[in-house]
Amino acid sequence: MELRSTLLEELTWTEIDSAIDEGVKTVIVPAGSVEQHGPHLGILKDAAWAEAIGVEMAEELGDALVAPVIRPGCSDHHMGFSGTISYRPETLMRVLEDYCTSLDSHGFEHIVLFSMHGGNFPAMNAILPSIAAEVDAQLITLLDKGLLIDPLMESLDEMEISADARGHGGAAVTASVWHLRPDLVREAEFTPGFTGDVSTSTLTMNGLDAVTELGHMGDPTEATLELGEAVTDRIVTAFSGRIRDERGDLDA
Amino acid sequence: MELRSTLLEELTWTEIDSAIDEGVKTVIVPAGSVEQHGPHLGILKDAAWAEAIGVEMAEELGDALVAPVIRPGCSDHHMGFSGTISYRPETLMRVLEDYCTSLDSHGFEHIVLFSMHGGNFPAMNAILPSIAAEVDAQLITLLDKGLLIDPLMESLDEMEISADARGHGGAAVTASVWHLRPDLVREAEFTPGFTGDVSTSTLTMNGLDAVTELGHMGDPTEATLELGEAVTDRIVTAFSGRIRDERGDLDA
Amino acid sequence: MELRSTLLEELTWTEIDSAIDEGVKTVIVPAGSVEQHGPHLGILKDAAWAEAIGVEMAEELGDALVAPVIRPGCSDHHMGFSGTISYRPETLMRVLEDYCTSLDSHGFEHIVLFSMHGGNFPAMNAILPSIAAEVDAQLITLLDKGLLIDPLMESLDEMEISADARGHGGAAVTASVWHLRPDLVREAEFTPGFTGDVSTSTLTMNGLDAVTELGHMGDPTEATLELGEAVTDRIVTAFSGRIRDERGDLDA
Amino acid sequence: MELRSTLLEELTWTEIDSAIDEGVKTVIVPAGSVEQHGPHLGILKDAAWAEAIGVEMAEELGDALVAPVIRPGCSDHHMGFSGTISYRPETLMRVLEDYCTSLDSHGFEHIVLFSMHGGNFPAMNAILPSIAAEVDAQLITLLDKGLLIDPLMESLDEMEISADARGHGGAAVTASVWHLRPDLVREAEFTPGFTGDVSTSTLTMNGLDAVTELGHMGDPTEATLELGEAVTDRIVTAFSGRIRDERGDLDA
Amino acid sequence: MELRSTLLEELTWTEIDSAIDEGVKTVIVPAGSVEQHGPHLGILKDAAWAEAIGVEMAEELGDALVAPVIRPGCSDHHMGFSGTISYRPETLMRVLEDYCTSLDSHGFEHIVLFSMHGGNFPAMNAILPSIAAEVDAQLITLLDKGLLIDPLMESLDEMEISADARGHGGAAVTASVWHLRPDLVREAEFTPGFTGDVSTSTLTMNGLDAVTELGHMGDPTEATLELGEAVTDRIVTAFSGRIRDERGDLDA
Amino acid sequence: MELRSTLLEELTWTEIDSAIDEGVKTVIVPAGSVEQHGPHLGILKDAAWAEAIGVEMAEELGDALVAPVIRPGCSDHHMGFSGTISYRPETLMRVLEDYCTSLDSHGFEHIVLFSMHGGNFPAMNAILPSIAAEVDAQLITLLDKGLLIDPLMESLDEMEISADARGHGGAAVTASVWHLRPDLVREAEFTPGFTGDVSTSTLTMNGLDAVTELGHMGDPTEATLELGEAVTDRIVTAFSGRIRDERGDLDA
Repeated sequence: MELRSTLLEELTWTEIDSAIDEGVKTVIVPAGSVEQHGPHLGILKDAAWAEAIGVEMAEELGDALVAPVIRPGCSDHHMGFSGTISYRPETLMRVLEDYCTSLDSHGFEHIVLFSMHGGNFPAMNAILPSIAAEVDAQLITLLDKGLLIDPLMESLDEMEISADARGHGGAAVTASVWHLRPDLVREAEFTPGFTGDVSTSTLTMNGLDAVTELGHMGDPTEATLELGEAVTDRIVTAFSGRIRDERGDLDA
Repeated sequence: MELRSTLLEELTWTEIDSAIDEGVKTVIVPAGSVEQHGPHLGILKDAAWAEAIGVEMAEELGDALVAPVIRPGCSDHHMGFSGTISYRPETLMRVLEDYCTSLDSHGFEHIVLFSMHGGNFPAMNAILPSIAAEVDAQLITLLDKGLLIDPLMESLDEMEISADARGHGGAAVTASVWHLRPDLVREAEFTPGFTGDVSTSTLTMNGLDAVTELGHMGDPTEATLELGEAVTDRIVTAFSGRIRDERGDLDA
Repeated sequence: MELRSTLLEELTWTEIDSAIDEGVKTVIVPAGSVEQHGPHLGILKDAAWAEAIGVEMAEELGDALVAPVIRPGCSDHHMGFSGTISYRPETLMRVLEDYCTSLDSHGFEHIVLFSMHGGNFPAMNAILPSIAAEVDAQLITLLDKGLLIDPLMESLDEMEISADARGHGGAAVTASVWHLRPDLVREAEFTPGFTGDVSTSTLTMNGLDAVTELGHMGDPTEATLELGEAVTDRIVTAFSGRIRDERGDLDA
Repeated sequence: MELRSTLLEELTWTEIDSAIDEGVKTVIVPAGSVEQHGPHLGILKDAAWAEAIGVEMAEELGDALVAPVIRPGCSDHHMGFSGTISYRPETLMRVLEDYCTSLDSHGFEHIVLFSMHGGNFPAMNAILPSIAAEVDAQLITLLDKGLLIDPLMESLDEMEISADARGHGGAAVTASVWHLRPDLVREAEFTPGFTGDVSTSTLTMNGLDAVTELGHMGDPTEATLELGEAVTDRIVTAFSGRIRDERGDLDA
Repeated sequence: MELRSTLLEELTWTEIDSAIDEGVKTVIVPAGSVEQHGPHLGILKDAAWAEAIGVEMAEELGDALVAPVIRPGCSDHHMGFSGTISYRPETLMRVLEDYCTSLDSHGFEHIVLFSMHGGNFPAMNAILPSIAAEVDAQLITLLDKGLLIDPLMESLDEMEISADARGHGGAAVTASVWHLRPDLVREAEFTPGFTGDVSTSTLTMNGLDAVTELGHMGDPTEATLELGEAVTDRIVTAFSGRIRDERGDLDA
Repeated sequence: MELRSTLLEELTWTEIDSAIDEGVKTVIVPAGSVEQHGPHLGILKDAAWAEAIGVEMAEELGDALVAPVIRPGCSDHHMGFSGTISYRPETLMRVLEDYCTSLDSHGFEHIVLFSMHGGNFPAMNAILPSIAAEVDAQLITLLDKGLLIDPLMESLDEMEISADARGHGGAAVTASVWHLRPDLVREAEFTPGFTGDVSTSTLTMNGLDAVTELGHMGDPTEATLELGEAVTDRIVTAFSGRIRDERGDLDA
């Protein structure tokens, strides 16, 4: 089946209706944030990244649509940096519930939930059991730090990027966003970020601005477009594989 | 001052910080929906329209940024049409509260709230007093059916478009979206929609699908790009004028 | 059928039970406020007015009862004037939900919702879809500024009352309340009120006391009992007509 | 000081403002219900009773106003009888909070809370600590079954009314309402009600309609106007005395 | 049937499963508090007492299990004393709802609710109707001050303990806890407590620390282990009797 | 300083007050669950384990008290097994908030939050930013799967316990509980549990009973008391070390 777009939002209701009728039974719900990632990345970074990853997943699967990316997200400890907009966890929980019950009512059989912003994991995971009790569709959740971070780390290892390059706004994420949404990247502003340790307690009590003036962690100067492509591919592959497993594609 | 973009989401936190420092004290929060508007409009229509109107307002004002458009919105009576995602009113109330308190904390002095989707008005107006009590910034609200619909109607009168052409997905809105976001318009699908009366009670109890199979009201076949430009200009002019009045630009 | 009273609250449960059995299938839920309207009107004005209008509607319909008027209402921007009691929107939303589910359980087939206080519209309209999903009865909503204000304005035009006479506590509303509840009117205190413009933003941020010391708008000195009767009749006729339309009385 | 009415709702904001200025620092908030009490009492009984008792208290104190009576109340186990409207406890909690914060803002120094409907006690008592933390005024609470029922029982003992005459809609309450609001009493329908035991568990699980078809308990046929006056006086005396104690009138 | 323990929490799921299968259809939910009771009682007192009373009831009934005691409880006016942890009423309401719906799902037919801390009564009673509407099991509620206090008072009368010995942390409760949980009692710290009157208004507005430095009321020096056994037996007998009545054991 | 107990609940308010005065500024809040862990473990396992670990941590630190363990927890996907009691995430969020604000008011300077039940992590982490904004004390959070699981895994590796022995109710957790709370362990019921993979999606949608009849995962037959002691020591050491780091003990 030929879809005009894999983005649900760009289609008319009749186009969506036909797609579902013809077998597009999976809808992917990406989540991100509106949050600072240092002076080299636009604040939509996590959301734009999530949307673009969602599109690659939908293309890889061939029978999925991508819902409008959820943003803002829970970004409380970035509030010290201008432009950040943060949801209280209860807000995000309600948003996710409304997305899932709405999409479920249209006949999608698999609702995939993922977030490219780790700060959304607690609220999203917390509300899952309630949503599961309300919908008929299968919820496929990729809301797991390991699943998200392992592919990034493997790429960095393989490409011999230093450990310090990692982190919030570091080489791996910068590279992947650069590959997918170059308009959000300011190459001229690549500069090493904070690389020390910062505990959850500190972040929770004092915010990230307590330890860094620039806002990012890790070193974006090691980012390359080649790394970006590698990282992106690994993530898309890992996520799509999980979806196929959960849907039981092999069993069919 | 030269802004790389009037869209907050495309800027880095440092760019936003500088802008505020240099006098960009107004942030515009557009709201829309993810909702069917007949077979000729993509379901992001209201949200994309609101974002584009927001950008024109920001350009007209010269000292404003546009926050990420709020969507979905409250679209309960469109749920019978595939793809529509609807927020419960409490969800939208929380979302708006989080937007405003976040933006207020960054030093904006004027927060402008408007919605190109009328279904959002009740929830947004209901939460306004609570928000007003929480923020330091001035709230400038354009959440008023008259303010939104009068400019559309005047344009239609002036261009001698028939009364039947009006309404949800009709000539005026189709034309304005066509002018601003042609990618969301399917010209080949322009077809007259429902033009009878439908009461709020019927919409509330039974949804719009009780009276129309296609989903739109009014007649998009009368839409032209010329009408779209006229309608858009009137809206932007009306909204920007109200903002200047509320900010007291003339008093300065 | 002979009802001892059209006010539900004055009847015993057995009288109500018989009435429903004998065909009284419509219950009217009026809403008002406990809020200042200048020095010439008791603060129950909107609620007493709504109750009296409800009774006239029930008499006009001949087969309806009137529930206890909902008050207080949402009166946030009147809090600067002594005696005003205001509900948060969430409170009014819950109150309305409890009214409707309770009345629905007793076998009423039509629940009519209206408010003589515009400040209640956002919260009442916001919760409607949730209520609609919970009740079996048909919800008939008259929660629409146009429907309320048009009859007032027409009466004023017809009787050549000046435009300045209109508004919160002005000639039209004062006259109608005078006609229905003279005990709440202080004729000796009729005095011209604020007639300038005040934006929603100002009301929301600063309250009505920012622009007027007296609290009312428009000019009650133009109120007459004759005008009161005319205004009242128009409102009752407009509302009752809408109820008959929604119930489909003509279709029977 | 000469008050036109002790009912806040009948006064204009300027009259209320003057009264507070001149020493009316106590506001009494009565609560009742909209609930069946057998075939001989109008369903507003508890609310009308509370309002009338409130007025007598205010007259006895000489420096108090009575807020609009709170109704409906929590009447869940009366829902089996037509006309009953019941609040969820959370609704009543919010209503009470809004009343108290509103009244507190106008400068009352003592806010008296009482309910002539026992079903309201749990929700009202539950929310008290939150309200106490929000207001400057002293909360004087009479929300105590003993305080309410002891005066009734003493009157019945003294007048040698049988024990079976007591209870929901029985002799004591019927007599007091008859004395205060004869329009709500149907003397022709006085008939002995249910006099057996019914546990809270049964009421909670099955409602009062599980044990009685008529809805009332005790025997209203023993009610007399003389008893009504005696019962009323005792209640008013007990409540007013408590208010004076709490305000520390003797200490002054 | 031989149960390894009457405490649900000490059993494995398979042991519980077998017990229910073999006729243990009653589960007892005790509630207490984490709250000061003077210098002679550990702050778990109410909760430990409730758990121990629950166990005695279960043993007396022979076919009941005891759920993990609910604690903390609502102890707002004890917050002035170190160590007290207090739930807002909404928290306790949610906790009770979750207990009951969980236990109901496992097939218990009778859920018994009681609290040895009076401060929990309002919140627990307020949420009962909602829970009753959600569960299949019969709710048996002992949440009634009279039921709790009458047996204590009768024991004290019978043993000629002075009236002043009663109250929060006084002779009766100290004795019963001493009998059941001697580890929580500091005999060396027995000292007469506050014995004056303190109104609910004072407690609500100012907390118990406004009238007593020590925190307890009544006189624990009159406590004896003999009194403790007598008080305990009366409470257990009164509660168990009520449970048998409500279950209809005699009807079988 | 000599504490009678490190368990806050066993102390009187005066003992707690003195302890805080003398330098006990850290309070540890353990969280667990009331949830099945196979036929060999009592359902209080996670909570009892958390409490015992908390006590060891307090002893190790020497200047800390342990609050009453929070239980139940969020155990939705164990509801298919008898006895499990589960909190909705919003309930646990409120419980944690009430604990922290209460403890903060008594003057503790460090509030340590940890959970031996992973299912509590989302709700607890989600509410952290709100709590951080409300309290003066430093929140020290150990709510991190890695921190909890790494020490278990290292012990298993070191003692050459097979990978299959791990998991919910497996060798490591069984051994640690056996060491700390032998009364909750049924050695006769040790039996290999489910060792396959089960995705979060499956757990969320269908519960653990969809994949295992017994309820546990991993193999408790490999548990030994020696392993239990090793595992326990590692956890206590890891947690206590983190607390010292966060408190800045070395900086002093």
